[in-house]
Amino acid sequence: MSKGSALNGPGASSSTSAVNSGGFVVRGDTLTIQTEERVELTDITDRVLAIVQTAAVREGIVSLWSLHTTFSVFMNASQKALHADIKRLLETIVDRDADWMHNDPDHSDCDRLNADAHLRAMLLGHSLTLQITSGELVLGQWQRVLVAELDGPRSRTLRVQVMGIA
Amino acid sequence: MSKGSALNGPGASSSTSAVNSGGFVVRGDTLTIQTEERVELTDITDRVLAIVQTAAVREGIVSLWSLHTTFSVFMNASQKALHADIKRLLETIVDRDADWMHNDPDHSDCDRLNADAHLRAMLLGHSLTLQITSGELVLGQWQRVLVAELDGPRSRTLRVQVMGIA
Amino acid sequence: MSKGSALNGPGASSSTSAVNSGGFVVRGDTLTIQTEERVELTDITDRVLAIVQTAAVREGIVSLWSLHTTFSVFMNASQKALHADIKRLLETIVDRDADWMHNDPDHSDCDRLNADAHLRAMLLGHSLTLQITSGELVLGQWQRVLVAELDGPRSRTLRVQVMGIA
Repeated sequence: MSKGSALNGPGASSSTSAVNSGGFVVRGDTLTIQTEERVELTDITDRVLAIVQTAAVREGIVSLWSLHTTFSVFMNASQKALHADIKRLLETIVDRDADWMHNDPDHSDCDRLNADAHLRAMLLGHSLTLQITSGELVLGQWQRVLVAELDGPRSRTLRVQVMGIA
Repeated sequence: MSKGSALNGPGASSSTSAVNSGGFVVRGDTLTIQTEERVELTDITDRVLAIVQTAAVREGIVSLWSLHTTFSVFMNASQKALHADIKRLLETIVDRDADWMHNDPDHSDCDRLNADAHLRAMLLGHSLTLQITSGELVLGQWQRVLVAELDGPRSRTLRVQVMGIA
Repeated sequence: MSKGSALNGPGASSSTSAVNSGGFVVRGDTLTIQTEERVELTDITDRVLAIVQTAAVREGIVSLWSLHTTFSVFMNASQKALHADIKRLLETIVDRDADWMHNDPDHSDCDRLNADAHLRAMLLGHSLTLQITSGELVLGQWQRVLVAELDGPRSRTLRVQVMGIA
């Protein structure tokens, strides 16, 4: 076995990379999520499951990484009522209209006035590490992978990297 | 070395899997935590340390994943007084008795009235990634691995996956 | 290829370890951050990038782990005004002067009176998992890796572990 590695994997595209070294696989995909609201939660579990199927890793991890400061990835149940509660909690903890310095042209060159989005995203987090066993994503009964748009609508990207033993 | 891998590892049981591909090991264990209170913190560091010992990975990572939406895993010191403060903070940030939609039968089919638990767990997080070097878990002086029951008492499960070079 | 592994890697020092098993590399470095204020944010992105360059992993992950309970690692933009907002948010959510049990000598043997630091660090988190592809750290346009001192000034350490295919 050489240190070199070869591209493999179905579904390869400009946003997909896959490397296999001695039965150890690393595969990267980039998901695009088009959001419609300023604050919006989206369930991306099925898209992550599809990537895990394609990656054909039997035992390993899935690293999810938001490619934006104001866009989060986290886990919770997928229920409309609960998602409304999550938005309400974020509004309560981080007041959009407080006089944040990030929104003050004297201190900031950002004209999006999105301090609240930066702060809310930070609380939800930008990184999630899941597990794969027997080729399946490890998820409890009600667990769903969610992304949170905090300053949309925009086109957002999330990188999904599967890593483990084929 | 084939792409195939073999089951290995001491302590194998229905909740343990271990695969070794060319010196690269992935081992998964499921810990059960029986909680006694509605909101309760438990120090599981010693159980994680025992798994790391058994896994015999020299350099790698440990992925911890809560298998429940209302059960968190995170790191902090293990002190009764501090744990009381953590519970108090969660109560302050997320009011159990607010009129959450998740608790409203008109909008939700969940009869546990546990919106607060979903929201508190989200703030603490469900995933923690630790490191192993020289066969030892990397932990600072006061660092302990904690789980938080937010809607107990219940029997909870946490998946511990060790991955790295044997 | 044996299960054994060999030390490799440039820049090896007392705080660096590197193991290579069949093209799979795990490299660990410890960064020291000297802080000057009680609460202070520092952008460590360039130091993480330098480690990734040296590690020479093409496809893999970077695990960041704070070695302290009151010192966090997370991602956000690197702007002075936003950092002031983050500090203000932490002060709002976690009141330093509330009568926390951790600060009460009747319940705690910690004389740092730093309950707020424990609670704030917990909200920001102690663990961050990044990705590497084509030998480069995966970061969006405004994304920077930050550490938060919550009980300084002190000398702090962060462990950076790179893991993947060389």
